[in-house]
Amino acid sequence: MRVDVIANVDDIRSEDFIQKSAVVIDVLRATSTMITALAKGACGLLPVETVPEAQSKRSKHTFVGGERYYKKIPGFQAGNSPHDYMSEEVAGKLVVLTTSNGTRGLLKSQRASRLLAASFMNGTACASALANFERDVILLCAGCKNEFSLEDGLCAGMIIDALESHLGKPVRLNDLGAAMKLAYRQCRHNLYETVMEGASAKQLVKLGFAHDVEYCTGIDTVPVVPITKKDLILTPLY
Amino acid sequence: MRVDVIANVDDIRSEDFIQKSAVVIDVLRATSTMITALAKGACGLLPVETVPEAQSKRSKHTFVGGERYYKKIPGFQAGNSPHDYMSEEVAGKLVVLTTSNGTRGLLKSQRASRLLAASFMNGTACASALANFERDVILLCAGCKNEFSLEDGLCAGMIIDALESHLGKPVRLNDLGAAMKLAYRQCRHNLYETVMEGASAKQLVKLGFAHDVEYCTGIDTVPVVPITKKDLILTPLY
Repeated sequence: MRVDVIANVDDIRSEDFIQKSAVVIDVLRATSTMITALAKGACGLLPVETVPEAQSKRSKHTFVGGERYYKKIPGFQAGNSPHDYMSEEVAGKLVVLTTSNGTRGLLKSQRASRLLAASFMNGTACASALANFERDVILLCAGCKNEFSLEDGLCAGMIIDALESHLGKPVRLNDLGAAMKLAYRQCRHNLYETVMEGASAKQLVKLGFAHDVEYCTGIDTVPVVPITKKDLILTPLY
Repeated sequence: MRVDVIANVDDIRSEDFIQKSAVVIDVLRATSTMITALAKGACGLLPVETVPEAQSKRSKHTFVGGERYYKKIPGFQAGNSPHDYMSEEVAGKLVVLTTSNGTRGLLKSQRASRLLAASFMNGTACASALANFERDVILLCAGCKNEFSLEDGLCAGMIIDALESHLGKPVRLNDLGAAMKLAYRQCRHNLYETVMEGASAKQLVKLGFAHDVEYCTGIDTVPVVPITKKDLILTPLY
């Protein structure tokens, strides 16, 4: 099995996903939020690209949330904090979500055979799923503004580490994958403090979301794996 | 002091180097070769972009070498193996070098206040020089075919590690820099084996250059720092 880690959404083409398993990683905070919403009983997640598209989906069956560069979109029911998706309002609803980077990553990866959303919170569960799919894997770090994000790279390293444990042997890695596996192993016992050194975490702390960084760096705390079905709707993999 | 690690030559613009110290890293093999040539008495190094340009510089005062994707260029006096630059022929000559990625990196970085060439072989000496320059730093990983190369990223991590030791305090890092510092610290006692997992090292081994990988992963073995003067000619920093 081969695993390629991609540094950000612009570093890969849609057709590169064909016949692969793909995992989109946006630890702070889109994929952590998706995992939370499904764990709290949302019936599905629909990532959409634009604000008007999200607004047009508003109904009694949906819960519409999103952000642009860390800020809630006016008129939306929620922002992009996982804590916005823990209420009873979410249960039984289709969550419609538009975010700066995470949703772009999911849309880019649509041609994959299997498409998952991962963060530290479900990393080992994702790795088990990838092992079962028995296909080569692309771990797509959503990043921020076309740049690599530390926490997404470390999460890719965590998934590689868990995948190798699951398989009981090394997987073939691209160079960035090999570097991320090393980086994760160096900081695994110090993950929160390490992620706090990254640009996204610093920005979130500045905006009053330190509790989100803490929540999103919990390892294997919510072992729900969002996976796409038809129409790019993500539901839990059982 | 702020240090940004850039994953490959295409991820940065020339003007981003203005007023900064820049370090080009192409461990396998351009910058390791440059360090070797200067240590063996070459009077200077001239990186050039094209094969005809290199050929036009041929004279009794020059030694012309280069490669394209690991292969020596027909008619050139040497390829890009550091072992080609250890003979007496090199002493006293201006080495004219054109390589797939390393020379592109140097040409891209020309607008920096100070421009160095680094590999594991001179990493600590480079870090000391950067500390003395007292400017923000760009560590440009040359990479391969517009992709990140493991060994260049780890060398960036080594320079950050050495710089922080020299200064006695942490420097501000971009997210890729933080990841590379972690990765280097995880594998520093196992560097050759780790670099061998990368795509460039595998390709070099396949082509019969395993001894180059071993030579180029020696830490602080040749503490000569190539630095540009006028006309992009690199000479040793004393």
